[in-house]
Amino acid sequence: MPATHPLAPVTPAEINAAAALIKAQFSPGTLIGFKSITLLEPEKPLVAEYLKAERENLPLPQLPRKAFVVYYLKSTGRPFDANVNLSTCKVEHNAPLGPFLHPNSDGYEIMKIEEAALSDLLVQAEIAKLQLSPDLEIVMDPWGYGSDGNGDEPRLFQCLLYVRPKGKVDANHYAHPLNISPVVDATTFKVIRIDRMPTGVNGAIKEPGKFEMQPESSYLPEDQDLRRDLKPLHVIQPEGASFKISRVGELGQRLEWQKWDFIVGFNQREGMVLYDIHYEGRSVLYRISLSEMSIPYADPRAPFHRKHAFDLGDAGAGTMANNLKLGCDCLGSIHYISGVLADDKGDPFDMPNVVCVHEQDNGIGWKHTNYRTGRAAIVRNRELVLQSILTVSNYEYILAFIFNQAGEISYEVRATGILSTQPIDLGVSVPFGTVVHPGVLAAHHQHFFSLRIDPAIDGHCNRLTYTDVEPYPHDEYFNPHGVGYRSFNTVVEKSGPLDLDISRNRVFKIENEHRRNPINGLPVGYKIQVPDFQKILAAEGSFHHRRSEFADHNLYVTRYREGELWAGGQYTFQSRGGNGVRSYAARKDAIVDEDIVIWVSFGINHIPRVEDFPVMPVEMLRVHLKPVNFFTKNPALDVPPSSQAVNRSELLTCDDKAADSCCIKSRGSPRL
Amino acid sequence: MPATHPLAPVTPAEINAAAALIKAQFSPGTLIGFKSITLLEPEKPLVAEYLKAERENLPLPQLPRKAFVVYYLKSTGRPFDANVNLSTCKVEHNAPLGPFLHPNSDGYEIMKIEEAALSDLLVQAEIAKLQLSPDLEIVMDPWGYGSDGNGDEPRLFQCLLYVRPKGKVDANHYAHPLNISPVVDATTFKVIRIDRMPTGVNGAIKEPGKFEMQPESSYLPEDQDLRRDLKPLHVIQPEGASFKISRVGELGQRLEWQKWDFIVGFNQREGMVLYDIHYEGRSVLYRISLSEMSIPYADPRAPFHRKHAFDLGDAGAGTMANNLKLGCDCLGSIHYISGVLADDKGDPFDMPNVVCVHEQDNGIGWKHTNYRTGRAAIVRNRELVLQSILTVSNYEYILAFIFNQAGEISYEVRATGILSTQPIDLGVSVPFGTVVHPGVLAAHHQHFFSLRIDPAIDGHCNRLTYTDVEPYPHDEYFNPHGVGYRSFNTVVEKSGPLDLDISRNRVFKIENEHRRNPINGLPVGYKIQVPDFQKILAAEGSFHHRRSEFADHNLYVTRYREGELWAGGQYTFQSRGGNGVRSYAARKDAIVDEDIVIWVSFGINHIPRVEDFPVMPVEMLRVHLKPVNFFTKNPALDVPPSSQAVNRSELLTCDDKAADSCCIKSRGSPRL
Repeated sequence: MPATHPLAPVTPAEINAAAALIKAQFSPGTLIGFKSITLLEPEKPLVAEYLKAERENLPLPQLPRKAFVVYYLKSTGRPFDANVNLSTCKVEHNAPLGPFLHPNSDGYEIMKIEEAALSDLLVQAEIAKLQLSPDLEIVMDPWGYGSDGNGDEPRLFQCLLYVRPKGKVDANHYAHPLNISPVVDATTFKVIRIDRMPTGVNGAIKEPGKFEMQPESSYLPEDQDLRRDLKPLHVIQPEGASFKISRVGELGQRLEWQKWDFIVGFNQREGMVLYDIHYEGRSVLYRISLSEMSIPYADPRAPFHRKHAFDLGDAGAGTMANNLKLGCDCLGSIHYISGVLADDKGDPFDMPNVVCVHEQDNGIGWKHTNYRTGRAAIVRNRELVLQSILTVSNYEYILAFIFNQAGEISYEVRATGILSTQPIDLGVSVPFGTVVHPGVLAAHHQHFFSLRIDPAIDGHCNRLTYTDVEPYPHDEYFNPHGVGYRSFNTVVEKSGPLDLDISRNRVFKIENEHRRNPINGLPVGYKIQVPDFQKILAAEGSFHHRRSEFADHNLYVTRYREGELWAGGQYTFQSRGGNGVRSYAARKDAIVDEDIVIWVSFGINHIPRVEDFPVMPVEMLRVHLKPVNFFTKNPALDVPPSSQAVNRSELLTCDDKAADSCCIKSRGSPRL
Repeated sequence: MPATHPLAPVTPAEINAAAALIKAQFSPGTLIGFKSITLLEPEKPLVAEYLKAERENLPLPQLPRKAFVVYYLKSTGRPFDANVNLSTCKVEHNAPLGPFLHPNSDGYEIMKIEEAALSDLLVQAEIAKLQLSPDLEIVMDPWGYGSDGNGDEPRLFQCLLYVRPKGKVDANHYAHPLNISPVVDATTFKVIRIDRMPTGVNGAIKEPGKFEMQPESSYLPEDQDLRRDLKPLHVIQPEGASFKISRVGELGQRLEWQKWDFIVGFNQREGMVLYDIHYEGRSVLYRISLSEMSIPYADPRAPFHRKHAFDLGDAGAGTMANNLKLGCDCLGSIHYISGVLADDKGDPFDMPNVVCVHEQDNGIGWKHTNYRTGRAAIVRNRELVLQSILTVSNYEYILAFIFNQAGEISYEVRATGILSTQPIDLGVSVPFGTVVHPGVLAAHHQHFFSLRIDPAIDGHCNRLTYTDVEPYPHDEYFNPHGVGYRSFNTVVEKSGPLDLDISRNRVFKIENEHRRNPINGLPVGYKIQVPDFQKILAAEGSFHHRRSEFADHNLYVTRYREGELWAGGQYTFQSRGGNGVRSYAARKDAIVDEDIVIWVSFGINHIPRVEDFPVMPVEMLRVHLKPVNFFTKNPALDVPPSSQAVNRSELLTCDDKAADSCCIKSRGSPRL
């Protein structure tokens, strides 16, 4: 029997058991489609007690293993969710979802939607009007329908249509969007309507006419005149990496690196989840994960006004995780973590290499030279990276947790992939998008991310504060020259939304009031460094605004409640709002010196450039958690000095007299 | 005779010649102290013509070589500046500086100030009151006096005093600040006053009493219990680097890398300067350099109210540049560029290895996976880095220009080094600083940087615009669902200051109205991505505010004028404002489709943490220049795919059964 652990992901055997218990709730032969079978974490006080015992090598409490199951009846499409106790083999909760709640999409459903749309005779007739050249073929991206309150009670998909040269299966079809868009009912798998898309400056719709194929825009290497002057660069760790990994249960991992240790989980919704993060035995975070993304588009015209993706709730960061390839997605000495998810039949399936773990050098960590003696002290900034990459149809997200030796945790998002495109008449331009290719409009869109941080700074009893900085008033006694300024802390008393204010240099901090820094007596804490962003532009009361419950403020803080993990609500597909963090926070719970949760919002307003096509160069966003008076000195002080004896750099000779003045290894290069 | 080039730094022979020409202006035996002898760039139209001819392989115009010389008469301290024509051996301009203008400090002067203060009998008497233990000795950091309008007409220094254990020359004296501070006249080298520093909550001054030595706070590796579990990480380029370097004149360098090419200069004031930056033969920038830094402190009490460093104008980024060490400051395959500056006697002296040039891998550059076929296309993000490190007494700045393969130029600042400290009574805390060690206060301070960008986007005739984003009004016809939004461009008509506005997602762009993108007809351009910052807190009208002419806005734009290179004014030491970019911009020049200069301000308000002591972990700031409709597609599309055949990564086995579960190289690791 494999070791169990309350935070380890569900195992294949547990997936099978959970599916069987659900199936047993219905009469034999009932066809069930599974949406997800994931770990239902035990209640936090129980897990906290377990983790404490584990750290203190005390006898471990027995905690039941539970799975959370989302499924639907294939006959009716009716969705349910259920809590399954795997230890007692009992289904403890099992109920249909409430009104307007739809579970995530999945590969089976997407395939069925495509089939339904393409085999529909009216769709075929509409496509025939395009008089497509016989060397072209249709490609379809089904999108969740979104919400606008107009006949959107059924579960629906909006299909985006493109063409590609026949048989060129990896051609970039996003360079060839069509202006017809079938809407498919996902319960009946019937086309209920065919929308036509406006392609001019306003909402006017044109009768489909002959489609003029534009030049291709391939991103494949064989279609490029590749650069020939890029020399290889290898990252080598001759003694292996500096981290240790051990199993936690069957599928969890404990990672230890440079005084950090934590547990790595992986699930359908969030992908990577980190638990029980400690530094030198001191607790920092109980849990951290990406909670949701929201991507509303700018084009106000039907059917684009509904375009609004929630990539975690609608699809799943676990489900979409790439199988990472050595030497392609990750450079250096790499360890891979694999996951197991459930398919639509309730069977486990392997998700190999969904997380890569490696170290990277990020330049200098700290340096000082005594100018009197010339003696320099310097260390490099080694980082530990856990990276996962999602493909959500056209877009890619490269997500990483990064730890360093100075007690800092960063979360990095790199947005890349292909813009979601739509057709536009040649010669037309619009203020809500950019023409990126002939006949191709990339509409503006906002990307919002919610990073859920469940802190445990030296314990679970924490508070949120913010530090503002303001000038001293001009004062003949204390500030006669008008140059002084002061910082001061404000304690956040109630759950709710909060905003940055650069004019006051506002910085949010998570503090433990009961643990004081021995040097200066201030509470130990971590600050949150996050770039400000333009809040959601959709009007208050609009469906986009109601659904995107975290996109209107820089941060939300809530008091911990079991099951409150989802910034955009547990079910985001065609959601209508009211179930996410805005709603959790509206309770106005007292949160001073309580078990609190911080939801950090960040994002970009993507105004596309031609340079973002056909694939966009990464756009990077970073959230940093940095200790503030948590340690008694720079925690990276004990990093071994940066020295040539260890680093073995090479001196290049760049000599005019050399054949092509190219920089080559110096013959006398020291290899100490 | 060495080749000359109008943008190459002055050579040793030119330094000697310039100094000799200046000396010849005075009667024999006149003692002259030189502050700087640097390249005086020819007028821009002449250089532009030269660079054009160079690129087109046409006959090169003959341009005179000129030096700019700042010096003073040792007998009187009177400062002058001069333009010396090295081609004609004529001094073309030579005049004393105007009132309140002081040149930079230099090593000779600092040494003389230290001597003057330490040998002063009143200072010795004051120190005697501290009853220092005989195993301690005094260390002194002379600071430029700053300005407050009260008797600060003479050139003055304010000396900060510390102690260290006797003979421990690399001990961290900043952990032991004293509360007495001599003020020295830099013309007479006499102590004119001894200030006492307040050490309580207000401005009250105490009679110096017995000094209580606190524990040391060493940053030296031999004083740490160093981590023993960090494994080596090597960056290897087996075929050398991908860049080429050739000489430009005697001391300039032309760098070619991945379709980029530009000239690298180095001078006393700015350190690194890049000129004539082109991508694939297309002009992007004429010149880029750090123009100034300004660091005002928060403590309103005398004498701290004057603490305000301008590290370029007061000291010089060239003068302060570290001699970089292979394997310590730079990792991988490194090329070093050395410089030559002039000493106080007017003799050339070598500045070896002041810039390191290398490539680095910065993760994934772009990726897309076709979810239908599973085919992934992916490239890595290779960067070219030019790095220079400054030591300015206690602080360090790591400065880098970074180029990538997607047509982007970044400027990175890493702030590190030691906080400027002052004494504080035990048990006292104040809102304008943080106690970082017993008896040690690190006052809050703002760091402002001005990056001067002289653009030439497809030519010198450019405009500055900004793009704002705003929601469409609710409109039953066009925006019935309240979700639409639009972007629109505003042309900046006149020189002046400008500010970011995150609520409008404001992005500044430099555009060439006369060159249009063939895909969408929009003007070619580059956008400026820069983090917002809290503007200078010192009140308008205060000396800090008047002096720091770039710290009150996110950006200044001016019309190009010869010699206008200095955001904080040409002479910042004890400056009073009125000579920097705020003053240049106040002309309200017409700047649409003109030769414009962009001055990007950025910075941080440093509220110290205990973790920033004794040496602070790097705090990073980045400015990005990114193409916007400059190219016809993603310019990094032709980067060769990321593949194991080239990258040679290694698979780690992290096995529970291994001795310590440490991640080691997998035996079967592919090395294709």
